Amino acid sequence: MGMTLYDLAGDDEELRFSPYCWRAKKALAHKRLEYETIPWRHGETEALAFSGQSVVPVLVDGETVVGDSWKIARYLEERYPDRPSLALTPETLFLNHWTDTVLHPAMMRVVMLDVFRILRPGDREYFRATREQRIGMTLEAYAAEPEKKAAEVKALLKPLRLTLESQPFFGGERPAYSDYIVFGAFQWQRAVSKVELLEPGEKLAAWREKIAGMR
Amino acid sequence: MGMTLYDLAGDDEELRFSPYCWRAKKALAHKRLEYETIPWRHGETEALAFSGQSVVPVLVDGETVVGDSWKIARYLEERYPDRPSLALTPETLFLNHWTDTVLHPAMMRVVMLDVFRILRPGDREYFRATREQRIGMTLEAYAAEPEKKAAEVKALLKPLRLTLESQPFFGGERPAYSDYIVFGAFQWQRAVSKVELLEPGEKLAAWREKIAGMR
Repeated sequence: MGMTLYDLAGDDEELRFSPYCWRAKKALAHKRLEYETIPWRHGETEALAFSGQSVVPVLVDGETVVGDSWKIARYLEERYPDRPSLALTPETLFLNHWTDTVLHPAMMRVVMLDVFRILRPGDREYFRATREQRIGMTLEAYAAEPEKKAAEVKALLKPLRLTLESQPFFGGERPAYSDYIVFGAFQWQRAVSKVELLEPGEKLAAWREKIAGMR
Repeated sequence: MGMTLYDLAGDDEELRFSPYCWRAKKALAHKRLEYETIPWRHGETEALAFSGQSVVPVLVDGETVVGDSWKIARYLEERYPDRPSLALTPETLFLNHWTDTVLHPAMMRVVMLDVFRILRPGDREYFRATREQRIGMTLEAYAAEPEKKAAEVKALLKPLRLTLESQPFFGGERPAYSDYIVFGAFQWQRAVSKVELLEPGEKLAAWREKIAGMR
């Protein structure tokens, strides 16, 4: 039986933009596991009540329910050791935390208003209220000067760029879960925003296309 | 026969503060390899001429000469596979580049004047001239507002701190080369500066003492 992944969606059900859900989807595909997604929107707490989770991704595998992208990756590795390995290393955890606490917040300043606009109209005020409380300013103030915000993200990409000078993937010779961590951030940004953070010819852009093109 | 490592020294020959040399020394100790160090000061190009390198660390192992801390780590792994592994992973390279291009420059703003002061008096003007050209301002301007600079470093430590919430070392259950990369930065800062970047009780401080206390 295939698995089910609760996956963040916009007003347009086809628009799937959560970086954490992308990590889980790429991990499932990497391990050649069949799954279907159920679109989920911010605030649909009752739909996740069964899981004990309040946010997606949530993976349902038969009787097992797993929330949190990192836990999902570890679960898949342990439960399906005969499938292609996600090659989690101790240092993958640092990359995971760096992406969550440095790259994502910087990207959020680029995409905040775009994310707001793609939400289901009924969800927007909830999103605005919770986010404005968290950031201590209006969404518009937070996202002001988008070129400057994009330049700040570009500056953060330096260690990613340097890594790809020596190896084709963050996971080395082949894609690994570390690639899906970084990919999720770019996929999120690109799904909702028209800002281009990468130069067409650069290795990081070619890497992104390669990961995007994998099933 | 033991190996020789050219190791950056201050005016006080006992003061060894290069983060890259610390990586190499910890890697050699990890692999239980005997070595001696030769103190080297900025600008002593003739002493390194034999090696084709212009900066330290430079490792001499019999007929083999290796410069650059990352290359030294890889050399030791390949040449001495039966010794304890440094456990380099593909993701270690990202951590290496992050440390070099994010953590070190931020720490440099905290320690720049301290580094200047510990140099051999005859080396100081060379150091000042080359560094001021690189940074485009005086050393004093670069290092102004030290508390603010220290706060900027502390903010960068977040993904390091979060990683140690889940595992005792950056290399997982045991120290690995990734630990020595991060340790080198702290060792450099602490060797020359009185600023304390870590809280006494925090895991990152305990981790630093553990690595410092290993031979």
